[in-house]
Amino acid sequence: MVAKSEIKDIRRLHQKKYRLLQRRFLAEGIKVVDELLHSDMQCDALYSTDPERYPNASPISEAELRKMSALVQPNTVLGVFRFPEETTPVLQGWTLALDGVRDPGNLGTLIRLCDWFGIEEMVCSPDTVDCFNPKVLQASMGSIARVRLHYLRLEDILSDCHLPVYGASMEGRAAASEALPSKGILVMGSESHGISETVRGLVPTTISIPSHGGAESLNVATAAGILLYEIRRQATGRQG
Amino acid sequence: MVAKSEIKDIRRLHQKKYRLLQRRFLAEGIKVVDELLHSDMQCDALYSTDPERYPNASPISEAELRKMSALVQPNTVLGVFRFPEETTPVLQGWTLALDGVRDPGNLGTLIRLCDWFGIEEMVCSPDTVDCFNPKVLQASMGSIARVRLHYLRLEDILSDCHLPVYGASMEGRAAASEALPSKGILVMGSESHGISETVRGLVPTTISIPSHGGAESLNVATAAGILLYEIRRQATGRQG
Repeated sequence: MVAKSEIKDIRRLHQKKYRLLQRRFLAEGIKVVDELLHSDMQCDALYSTDPERYPNASPISEAELRKMSALVQPNTVLGVFRFPEETTPVLQGWTLALDGVRDPGNLGTLIRLCDWFGIEEMVCSPDTVDCFNPKVLQASMGSIARVRLHYLRLEDILSDCHLPVYGASMEGRAAASEALPSKGILVMGSESHGISETVRGLVPTTISIPSHGGAESLNVATAAGILLYEIRRQATGRQG
Repeated sequence: MVAKSEIKDIRRLHQKKYRLLQRRFLAEGIKVVDELLHSDMQCDALYSTDPERYPNASPISEAELRKMSALVQPNTVLGVFRFPEETTPVLQGWTLALDGVRDPGNLGTLIRLCDWFGIEEMVCSPDTVDCFNPKVLQASMGSIARVRLHYLRLEDILSDCHLPVYGASMEGRAAASEALPSKGILVMGSESHGISETVRGLVPTTISIPSHGGAESLNVATAAGILLYEIRRQATGRQG
């Protein structure tokens, strides 16, 4: 039995403003919660309908889980985690920079992609969707446990940066015909507007994915996946 | 003013069984409807809240549009289109074969990807989500007008096929280290189960996207995007 006030407190974490106030977020489902429990993230509270699987969790009913959950189909376990400590970007190897990506599903997929390609850091413009949004966490499939996200003005990073900066743009040169270095920053723009005017001035080189058909554009996550693939492919080729 | 019975008839097209019965589907939003109107698809009825933009459409109110629509945020125009004529697969160049892809957003993104990479045909197992599902159409961004989809048992196509067949699998060889031919069939499995047992036996070669980090898998649309990119990259390299 969970107190009404506790459920209310947790439901508040569906909203960004309360997450920022409490500096905590909600993680749901076995995959995401397990990845976070096995990471450096600090768990403040854990609730589960399956006490055998989660002996340290507060046992709750299906009805209570549904009340707390931000998902249409809540699944077994829900945890409250503290925001990781804020750090400044290290900018080692490759970093993915996002300029105004608004769609939670896209951001989640981008985090998962970075994890796949061993990109340990992302920098996001302040108008990029919050990475602790429940839909982002869901789409990230737990990869948020291994990729650090920094929210800051991209201008501040890019204007004073020792790494080569590449931007994804339809007008850029084909990525495969560009010799991509072993470290750098890849800037991806928003789904509808691309890279913003202010940021574009700080991106000396743009690269693209050649089109062979009629579609006008690619989804931002698909495009990032292909460019990160190309970056890793070229590096592997250089190694041997 | 649209008759109640007409609205009811259109709402039925939200469901696959009525689409199959009527052999018609619903397309919504400026982007998707405009692409379909400029294609070979036959439009049975067109409704719009913007008669200036769509002079041939039946003018309707916002309230009527909301009643007809399958979207949370309906947008200006809605059309009823006839199913394209059924044809047998031509299997020229590269074809994307989907084995049990259930997520509408993923299928829509895959159609858009095929359009981008100039893949004109897709073959889908019968348990793949219906391409005329409103969410698929939305995610395809109108690319459905240029990519033909065939629903059939993949076994029937693959067991008697003159083209080389490749499957995406985590156990496969790195796609970049495989010399990919100028035509073939690329088989992608479902989000959760990969390529099914029956189909796997008909896939002689599997290829993969090397992982550099901790994520366990890639989204099926992202993975397909990367493999189609690699196929086109190798072909471009051969040409010049």
